[in-house]
Order: sequence, then C-alpha cells, then structure tokens
Amino acid sequence: MTDTAGQNAGNAARLRVRSGQHAGHTSGVALGFAQGNVVILPAALAGDFLRFCQHNPKPCPLLAVSNPGDPHLPTLGADLDIRTDVPRYRVFRSGELVAEPTGIAELWRDDLVTFVLGCSFSFEEALIADGLEVRNMSLGCNVAMYRTNIATVSAGPFRGPLVVSMRPFKPADAIRAIQITTRFPATHGAPVHIGLPEAIGIRDLARPDYGDPLPVGPDELPLFWACGVTPQAVIAVSRPEFCITHAPGSMLITDLRNSRLGVL
Amino acid sequence: MTDTAGQNAGNAARLRVRSGQHAGHTSGVALGFAQGNVVILPAALAGDFLRFCQHNPKPCPLLAVSNPGDPHLPTLGADLDIRTDVPRYRVFRSGELVAEPTGIAELWRDDLVTFVLGCSFSFEEALIADGLEVRNMSLGCNVAMYRTNIATVSAGPFRGPLVVSMRPFKPADAIRAIQITTRFPATHGAPVHIGLPEAIGIRDLARPDYGDPLPVGPDELPLFWACGVTPQAVIAVSRPEFCITHAPGSMLITDLRNSRLGVL
Repeated sequence: MTDTAGQNAGNAARLRVRSGQHAGHTSGVALGFAQGNVVILPAALAGDFLRFCQHNPKPCPLLAVSNPGDPHLPTLGADLDIRTDVPRYRVFRSGELVAEPTGIAELWRDDLVTFVLGCSFSFEEALIADGLEVRNMSLGCNVAMYRTNIATVSAGPFRGPLVVSMRPFKPADAIRAIQITTRFPATHGAPVHIGLPEAIGIRDLARPDYGDPLPVGPDELPLFWACGVTPQAVIAVSRPEFCITHAPGSMLITDLRNSRLGVL
Repeated sequence: MTDTAGQNAGNAARLRVRSGQHAGHTSGVALGFAQGNVVILPAALAGDFLRFCQHNPKPCPLLAVSNPGDPHLPTLGADLDIRTDVPRYRVFRSGELVAEPTGIAELWRDDLVTFVLGCSFSFEEALIADGLEVRNMSLGCNVAMYRTNIATVSAGPFRGPLVVSMRPFKPADAIRAIQITTRFPATHGAPVHIGLPEAIGIRDLARPDYGDPLPVGPDELPLFWACGVTPQAVIAVSRPEFCITHAPGSMLITDLRNSRLGVL
C-alpha cells in the first residue's frame, strides 16, 4: 500500500510541514494522498485504545500503529517522523489541552505509541472527482465538526461521544455521496446520519464544536460522517495522564494514495 | 436467470392470479421472486418505447420484451401468459383510462408488444432481510407514489414526469437503504431523492397520486425511488392510441429470483 517511488505530492507536502513552511489546516493539500488523524498515547494505555478503535471502526479506522517509542511509521511514508510531520499538535495532560505546538520532539518519550486513523479528506477527493461540490473545499475552510449524543463503545478508560463532520448536499448529490463514501471504509465510510441534526444532539449547525461553520442551503441536507476527532472528545472525558493529537483539520499527510483505500 | 425447477413460490402465486384467486396488490406476495411493471403497446410504438426505457433506466429498467403478438415471456417464467397473469390491468385509449379488467385475452392483438420493467418490491425484500422496517409492508398496504416535477427524457411520442415511490426511514436506516438498493439497478437502484419532497414538486405527502398514503414520523426522512408507474404518467401525457399496463401495485409475478437481480 506504500508508494515507494520517493518524492510524491504527499511526501513533498510532509516535508513542507516538517520545515515549518505549512502549519495550517491541510484540507485540499496534496490531493491524491491520504491524510490521517493522529493519537499518541503512553504504551500503558495503547492496548485499551487499540480495543477502542476496534470497537468504533467508523470514527477510528486504523491506518497504522507504531512500536512503543518509535516515531516512525514506515507503512505511511519511508521518512515519516511523527515528532515533526504534523502541522499543528494538541498536547493534553489529564484531559486538559495544555499546548498546541508545531513539533513534539521535546515531548517525546520512549513509551509513546502513535495511532494514525483514516480521515474524511481522503473521500472528499472522490466526491469532487465525481462532480460533487464539497462545501469546505469550495470555501477553502475547515470542515464543520460536532459532538453528538451518540456514545462510542468504551474500552478501558476510553469513553465519550461520537464526533461527526458535516457537509451539505442537495438531495440527489447526498445519495451519490453516500454511494461514493461507502467505498471508503478506511476513511470513515458512509455517513452515520442525514438531515435531522437535532436527532443526534446537534442543536445549532452554525456553531460547530470543532472546525468552521458551513452554510447549509434550504434546498440542501446536512450529511454527517463519523470523524477522527472523536478521540479528542474521548480524551476530554477519559482524561488519560498524557496524550498528543493533531489539531482538528491539521492532519498528517501520508504517502498512501487515496485510491488504494477504496474497496470495489 | 430463469428458475427452471418448475413449481416455485413465484409460479404458484402467478397461477393463483391466473385462476382468479388473487386480484389485489402484490406487495409481500411470493417473497424471493421478482415482480414486474407491465406496459403493452402496439408494435408501431414499441421502438420508441424501447428507446424511452433506454433513456430512462432508473424508472424503466427492462427485464424482458416480447416478440410482437406473442403473449409469452419465457425468460420470466416458462408458462407465463401476459393476457391472464397480472392481477389487474389498466386499459388506455388515447391516454384515457377506459377499463381495469383482471384479464386481457379479449383485447389481445397480434401486433402487441409486452415490456416488463423491474419493480421496487424486489428490493424491499433485501431491506427487510437487513432488519429495516418497510412501512408499506409493515402496514400491509400499497406503497405511496407521486408524480414529480422531474421530466423523463423523451423518445418519439413518449414524454412526461418521473413518478417516484416513497418509503420513510430514520436517518441511519435511510443511509443503509441507499446502500442496499444501490445493489439492485434492475429494480430502480438507489433512490433519486431524499428528505425534501417539495424540491421535486411533491406538495403533500399525505396525498399520493398512486397507491396508499404512508405516515412519515418526525424522526424520519422520506426516501424516493424512481418508479415503474412512470410509463402510466407518460401515457397520460403522450396519449398513444392503445396501451395496457398493470394497475399500480398489482404486478406481474415472475419466476426470477430477486437475489439474481443484485449486483456485487
């Protein structure tokens, strides 16, 4: 699944991140290459978190897990170094956000395990290739994300609400978007909800919990996909002693081609 | 694609229709076997209607076409006789409904061509097998059907509005229903619309143009599939000199197994 041809758009974008040239959100960056949600935890919690991912495959589709203390993830990129290659990180201590650095070399520990989860940015490309308008892409902003009243399945200390990303579509396009994203189980797959935000505990679409608000036209329906930011909501509830994640929308760019993540 | 084992549930139900024991709608009858929409036209119009079906594959997925004057359709059932095997017919002269008989032997002509189109009853079975509630099945009534403001693609004299069938689902079930019916392109495939009936010209869900009204809960969305009753709306507009169809909901039961109509 790894592209071994050396320099490619994913690799090039990751090098720009590493050198400090790109520290913002990565929506629309390195089209064709998969981006990942990042969760870094002490090895003592890694088994529980792996089980959490297995229980909750729609928000937490695992693309790769590192060995303890190893900052490399060679299946996602030969040169990848998780300490430098995410545009912006979030550092949590006992569930509290304490810093948002652009690198974590000084925080690295030899017991840290990295989890990379598939990201909806991968399927956005397939939607656009089909002629659909993806609102956050056409507006050049981050996607809108919300905590829902849907509980994840807990594992050890990890429990909390499902987070969803929202994109609006006209009804016929919504049906097409469901068909297309069904082909991408490794990047959250089909939506989990459509059309009735209040039914999943979202009171105001204009006030997302993460990312940017997106306008929804009167002739459109909001489509909601399980989101890789879910672990961040879970961390706020579960309060592990130490955890590092990406900042929402500022993803790890990999060398994996999005098309390779599609089934059928 | 034909089941040649002789007696089966499809065959048995068709014999009950033929003998006059069943003259009502066929929702839920002979589960496992495909039902078909029927259009019978003079040969002079058959080429245009074939082209109409080709232009409009979602409402008009062709399962079989007869030779002119031949009342048999052996690929749908070895013994099938279209003059006797539909529970109730509709006879149109110049677009006007003139009779609703239970047999058409006395109206048969040696230039008539029969078209059988896939029917949504086939995919209802797959929805139920997946654990979804199909409202018209659970209420034991006909499905609700509506003329829309979506125009079909015309061919020769054939033109008119797309007719859709409606089934309500909770949002997550609606997504699942889209996935399942996508596998059945020969029986209308995925829905054409979801959630906003007025956007396709439906003013009042409680007043369908064909079939029975179905309640839609506040926590549900209406899903709309292209419907094989579309030719009847087209005939009302196009006014061919002579045409026979099935009565909406009273379908031709075939020996084709529904599962054989699924792709993937």
